[in-house]
Amino acid sequence: MKRVESNLEYLRKLFIMPETPDKFMEFGHAVLEMIHDFVQEKEGLHQSITLPELAGIFNQTSMPESPHLIRDVVAEIRDKVTLHSVKVGSPYYIGHMTSAVPYFMILLEMIIASLNQNQVKIETAKASSFVERELIAWVHRMIFNQSEGFYRRNIQNPRVAIGNVTSGGTMSNLTALLVAREKALPADRRFPGVRKAGMERALRHHGFTRLVVLTSKRGHYSIKKSANLLGLGEENVIEVPVDTHNRIDINRLRRTIRAIKRDDQITDARTKIMAIVGIAGTTETGNIDPLTELGDIARQEGAFFHVDASWGGPALIIDEYRNLFRGIEAADSVSLDFHKLAYCPMTMSIIVFRNERDLNNLKQVSQYVNRRESVDTGRFTIEGSRPFACLKPWAALKILGKDGYRLLFEQAREAMLTFRRILEDSGNFEILNDPELFIINYRFVPHFVRIEVHELAEASKPSSDRTSREEARNKVRKTNRILNELNIQLQKSIRLDDTTFVSRTAIESTQYQYQRIVVLRAVLINPLINDSILEEIVSTQNRIGLSLADQYEPILKETLA
Amino acid sequence: MKRVESNLEYLRKLFIMPETPDKFMEFGHAVLEMIHDFVQEKEGLHQSITLPELAGIFNQTSMPESPHLIRDVVAEIRDKVTLHSVKVGSPYYIGHMTSAVPYFMILLEMIIASLNQNQVKIETAKASSFVERELIAWVHRMIFNQSEGFYRRNIQNPRVAIGNVTSGGTMSNLTALLVAREKALPADRRFPGVRKAGMERALRHHGFTRLVVLTSKRGHYSIKKSANLLGLGEENVIEVPVDTHNRIDINRLRRTIRAIKRDDQITDARTKIMAIVGIAGTTETGNIDPLTELGDIARQEGAFFHVDASWGGPALIIDEYRNLFRGIEAADSVSLDFHKLAYCPMTMSIIVFRNERDLNNLKQVSQYVNRRESVDTGRFTIEGSRPFACLKPWAALKILGKDGYRLLFEQAREAMLTFRRILEDSGNFEILNDPELFIINYRFVPHFVRIEVHELAEASKPSSDRTSREEARNKVRKTNRILNELNIQLQKSIRLDDTTFVSRTAIESTQYQYQRIVVLRAVLINPLINDSILEEIVSTQNRIGLSLADQYEPILKETLA
Repeated sequence: MKRVESNLEYLRKLFIMPETPDKFMEFGHAVLEMIHDFVQEKEGLHQSITLPELAGIFNQTSMPESPHLIRDVVAEIRDKVTLHSVKVGSPYYIGHMTSAVPYFMILLEMIIASLNQNQVKIETAKASSFVERELIAWVHRMIFNQSEGFYRRNIQNPRVAIGNVTSGGTMSNLTALLVAREKALPADRRFPGVRKAGMERALRHHGFTRLVVLTSKRGHYSIKKSANLLGLGEENVIEVPVDTHNRIDINRLRRTIRAIKRDDQITDARTKIMAIVGIAGTTETGNIDPLTELGDIARQEGAFFHVDASWGGPALIIDEYRNLFRGIEAADSVSLDFHKLAYCPMTMSIIVFRNERDLNNLKQVSQYVNRRESVDTGRFTIEGSRPFACLKPWAALKILGKDGYRLLFEQAREAMLTFRRILEDSGNFEILNDPELFIINYRFVPHFVRIEVHELAEASKPSSDRTSREEARNKVRKTNRILNELNIQLQKSIRLDDTTFVSRTAIESTQYQYQRIVVLRAVLINPLINDSILEEIVSTQNRIGLSLADQYEPILKETLA
Repeated sequence: MKRVESNLEYLRKLFIMPETPDKFMEFGHAVLEMIHDFVQEKEGLHQSITLPELAGIFNQTSMPESPHLIRDVVAEIRDKVTLHSVKVGSPYYIGHMTSAVPYFMILLEMIIASLNQNQVKIETAKASSFVERELIAWVHRMIFNQSEGFYRRNIQNPRVAIGNVTSGGTMSNLTALLVAREKALPADRRFPGVRKAGMERALRHHGFTRLVVLTSKRGHYSIKKSANLLGLGEENVIEVPVDTHNRIDINRLRRTIRAIKRDDQITDARTKIMAIVGIAGTTETGNIDPLTELGDIARQEGAFFHVDASWGGPALIIDEYRNLFRGIEAADSVSLDFHKLAYCPMTMSIIVFRNERDLNNLKQVSQYVNRRESVDTGRFTIEGSRPFACLKPWAALKILGKDGYRLLFEQAREAMLTFRRILEDSGNFEILNDPELFIINYRFVPHFVRIEVHELAEASKPSSDRTSREEARNKVRKTNRILNELNIQLQKSIRLDDTTFVSRTAIESTQYQYQRIVVLRAVLINPLINDSILEEIVSTQNRIGLSLADQYEPILKETLA
C-alpha cells in the first residue's frame, strides 16, 4: 500500500466537498461496484475464512503512522472486510432480524453523514429536531391513537417529549424502565426522589423492600440488563412461564403476584411491582403477549406497563396487524426498532410514552447544553450526542408509504406460510411454534423418529395409565435430548455448508412442556425471498440433516425400542 | 408530490443493488449536488427560518399513506430539511464540537449501511468484529501502552474485551461506572453481587451507607446521569471546585474526602468512594485535570479511577500532547469520542479498560445471542444491536495516519492561538480560560469597562485594606452581572446575525472566583479555519458587541462610578 506524504492542503481538500461531485463520484462508483460485487458474489453467506484466520489478518497492535491513499484503503476494505462480511441481505440468510435494506437507505446515510447534525440541541440540529418530533408523533399515533388535538398540541411542543429516538431496543427499554423507576419512587415534600437520592434511600423512604419487574420467560435479555443498570438487581426480574404459544401465562402471572404478596406478609417485607413488561413479538418466536390482560393487571397493581415491541412494533404501520396487538394502546410506553421489521440499516429505535408528561421525569439541564429556557431534545434523553438517524424511517415512510409496508408485510407473511408448508411437506421437520410475526421455530426430526415420538407424546398425556405414562415420558425426554444434540450439529453443519443460514435457540415452551428443546429459527422478512429459494433452503437443510441422522439412527432406535 | 402505485416488483427492485451502479449513481449525484449546494450556499449558518415556522412545516400528525418517488422525497429533504439544517461544517461555526468531516467519511457510511452488519454477534458481523477489536487495541495501546505481549495476547482473544465501541460518550461513561459499581459491591461466597441483588441489598451486605463519585465542577452531566441510572443518586456525585485553570483543586478534593470520613464518623455512616472521575478536556473549557494526583488519591482510597477523555482523548493519537495527559496511563478506564476531535461523523465512542478482565463484570449470556461458548462481542456491551461504526475511525486512522492527525491538531492549535491573539488585540474582549485543547472562553467587555474592572479586581485582592476591598468587590460583582447580561444578549444577537457562531456557558472558575461569569465559547478544530476567517469572526462579534454596549453604557458607568 502506498504511503502518501501528508500536507495541510491535501488534508483540507478532504474536508471540502469538491467543486463538482465528480471527484467524489469516482470513489462513490468504486464503493458501489464493491458493494455490488459483494452482493452478487456466490461464495456463501459467511465466507469460508475461519475465525483464527481473520484474527491473523486484523492483528496490528498499533495505529498506522503514515497516511495512505483513499483508493488503497478502499481496496483494503474490499479485500479484508467486505469480502469477509456476512451477507445479511441475502434471501438465503434467514437466521436473524437483519434483512436486505432498500438502496435509498444508502442515499439517506450519505445525507445524514454530510449534514452531521447533532440531535442533542437545537444549535446543532435545526430542521432535524423537527423531523424527529414529527416522526415520533407518527409512531405515537400509530400505537396510542390519541385525539388529533393531542397531536396538534404536542407534535412540536418543546416543553414535552412524547418519545425519544434511541440507538437501539436496549436503550429504549432502559428509558422506559428508568421512567417507571421514577414513578415508583417519586419525590415528595420530604424526599427528593430516587433520581437524586438513589435506590437505597428511595426504597427506605417509600417503605419498600425491593422493586420487581414482571415479564415472561421470552422477555429480551435487555430487561435484565436494565434491572442491573438501574440498581434493582437481575434477581428482581421475575420471569413468568409462557404457554405453548409463547405468550405469558396470565394465570401463572396472577399466581406469581399472589405469591409475592404472601411472601411479603410472611417475611414482613414490602415488594413494589415497578413494571410489567409485555412482549409484542418475542425475539425467539415472534409471538405477542395478551396485552389487554397484562394492562388490566398492571393497572390493578399500580405498576407501569411497558410493551417491548422492538421486533413486532412496525407491523402496526398497517391496520391488518392491529388485532394481534390489541391492548397495546393501554401501555404506558412502547419501544420499537426500525432497523429490524421496518427495513432501516443499523440502528434506529424509538420509545414512546402514552402520557406526554412521563419523560419530564428524565428532564435534565446543564449550563452548556439544555439550559433551562432551552428547547433542546437532549433534555429528555439518556443519550447525549445523537446522529440524525430519524431521517431514515421518516423518509422510508414517505417513499414506501403504508401501502408499501403493507406489500412487504404481506410478502413476509406469504414467505412464513410457504416455509412452514415446505417444512411440513418434507416429512423430516417439526414446527415448534405458532408463527405470527414472521418467525418460525422448527427442528429436524428424521421421519423414522417422528411418528414414534408423537405416539409417545400422546401416551405420556395425563389420560394414560400411570406406568406406561412414566415410561413414555422418559422415552420422549431421552429422545429429545438426542434430537437436541442432532439439531445443534445440524445448525453447525448448515453454517459450515454456508449456502443457507438459520439461527438456533432452545426453548421450554414447545409441545414438549417443560423440557428445553433446541430449535432452528427462521426470520422470513427479506422481500427477496421467493418460493424456489425457500424450497432450496429446506432441501439443503434436509440433505444435511439426513446425513447426520445416519450417525444418530442406532442410538435413536435404541432409545425408542 | 407524485403518489406512486406500489407493487411488489417495484419494491423488490429497491432492495436490490442495481445490476450496474448507474441507477444508484443518478440519485447519488443528485444527493451530492444537494450537499454541495448546501455547503456552498452563503445564507447564514442556521438559516433565517424561525422555530415556529419550522413547527409549521413539520406538522403532519399521521404517517403518509401512499408511496412517493425517491426523486420527490429527496427534493423534499432538500427543500425542507437540508436547507434548514445547521452548517456545523462551516469554519465560521466555531461554537460546538461538531466540525467539518472529511468526505471519505460519506463513502464509509455507504459501506456501513450496505453491509449492515450487526456487531452484537459473530453470526451477523464476521470481519467487522475483528476490525472492532483491532481498533480497540490501537486505542488501548495509545492510552495505556502496555507491552507488545499484552496486545498480542488480547487483541483478538474472544474470552476478554479490553474495551467497547459505544454510541456516545454518555454510554462510555455509563459503562465505566457500571464496572466501577460491580467492583465496589462484588459477589462473594454469601452474596451474588450488586448486579444480581440490586443496590439496596448490596450496600447492606457490604456495610456501606452509600456510594459516591467524585469529580470536578467541570464534570460532564453524563456523570450525574449515570449516577441516576445506576441507582446511586445524583446527590452522590460530589463536584469538587476547580482552580482558575479549570482543573480539579486537589487540596479541595483531599478536604472533601476528609469531610466525608468525618461525617461518616459523626453519623455512624459508611461511605464508599466508588469512583474518582478525572476529565481530560472539559466540555466547557478544554482543560485537563491533574491525572497523576487523581490516580494516586484513587489508589489510596480504593476507588475506581475513570478518565472522561471524550473530548481530548484523540489528541493522544500524536505524541506531542502526551505530556498534557500525564497520569492517564494509570486510569482504570478511559472514554473517548471519535465524532468530536477525531473528525468522524456522529456518533462513535470508545471505552477502554486497563485491566483486560474488568469487562467480565458485564458478561451476559442468553440462549439466542451470546451463548456460553460464544465469541460474540455483545457479551460485554450495555447496548445490544450496534452498527459497524468502528469502520470510520479504523479507516480514518489509515487514510490520515498519525501524520495526518498531527497536521490537523497543529492547525487547530494555530487557530486557537491566532483567535486568542485577535481577541486580545481588539481591546474589547477578555480571555477567561487558559486554552489547552482548542477551546477558548472569552467575553465581550467594552474597552471603557475593561480597565476599570481590572483595577477593581486588583483592589479586591486580599492585600488591599478591608473597606476598599469590600467596596471594590461589590462593584466587580455588579459589573459582572451586567456584563453577563450583555454577553447573553451578544450571543443571541450573534445567532440572529447568523454569519458566525459561538456557543455560551457560565462558569465560576475564571479570575473572578467564585462568581458565575457568562462566557462565549469557541471550539477551533475545523481545518477549514484560516486567519482571515478568524479576523472576520472577531470583527463581526466586536461590531455587534459595540452596538449592544451603547445600551449598557449608562448603567455600566453608573455602577463603576
